[in-house]
Amino acid sequence: MLVLGVDPGSKVTGFGLVEKKGHEMFFIHAGTIRTPPKSPFYERIHEIFRSVTEIMTQFRPQEMALEDVFFAKNVKSALKIGHARGAVLIAALQCGVKIFEYTPLEIKKSVVGYGRASKEQVRAMTEVILNLRIQPDLDASDALATAICHLNWTRYGR
Amino acid sequence: MLVLGVDPGSKVTGFGLVEKKGHEMFFIHAGTIRTPPKSPFYERIHEIFRSVTEIMTQFRPQEMALEDVFFAKNVKSALKIGHARGAVLIAALQCGVKIFEYTPLEIKKSVVGYGRASKEQVRAMTEVILNLRIQPDLDASDALATAICHLNWTRYGR
Repeated sequence: MLVLGVDPGSKVTGFGLVEKKGHEMFFIHAGTIRTPPKSPFYERIHEIFRSVTEIMTQFRPQEMALEDVFFAKNVKSALKIGHARGAVLIAALQCGVKIFEYTPLEIKKSVVGYGRASKEQVRAMTEVILNLRIQPDLDASDALATAICHLNWTRYGR
Repeated sequence: MLVLGVDPGSKVTGFGLVEKKGHEMFFIHAGTIRTPPKSPFYERIHEIFRSVTEIMTQFRPQEMALEDVFFAKNVKSALKIGHARGAVLIAALQCGVKIFEYTPLEIKKSVVGYGRASKEQVRAMTEVILNLRIQPDLDASDALATAICHLNWTRYGR
């Protein structure tokens, strides 16, 4: 089972591919989609859509996991996150990739063991679980953690 | 010039097609995309994307106009509007339809003459401008007004 974890944002979208064979998880690929800051907002949204579609076409994950968002700093940032998430969801739906959403608490609990872990702690555990030699970007490790969370849940039959 | 006006929302998305020939505007089509309320949120977003894509494929508008959103009741509704707008923008970008955005003030001023007009006043003026025989839904008339606003602006060389 190959899972794509995504951490959507209008400026930076992290992604991470994790494969599970038997009881073991393997790191496949991870990175960030950075949208040109001076281009119109809708161009940035299109860039996210195109890049996620490209990753799905290249790696063909069966499922996508992403963080469920209920909060944001303010209305303005909520609008931006909404657009970015919309682009990621449409990409998955168009590619026929199943969508699974997890709360930040579920993701942190699943990877670090408790729900108030910092991004750095999440990254450190992600490195251990996937045996990473190169430290990923914080956005990429958040995405990897989301994929790990999904693979942990599916183990218990979700 | 055929313009598609869109008023995106996660529950109801209004759309309206207006054509301008010489100095006259003609009503082509209008309606609402209503997403099934009990389906998962991402399915509703996909429905908006599919329906807008279908309208564009069928009518082939050259340009799309939509309301620019800066405000929302709260973070939760901002997230929802953001997703719906993201789906509409991706549909236009994938269909190669140019995107134009106008503030609510610009739209109301352009159609009714002043920026604090009610939705009902906007609809009434839309009916007059486009010579409508059947009163459109309020979401559809908002979308038609956005298209009219764009066609008014383009007259002055925008």
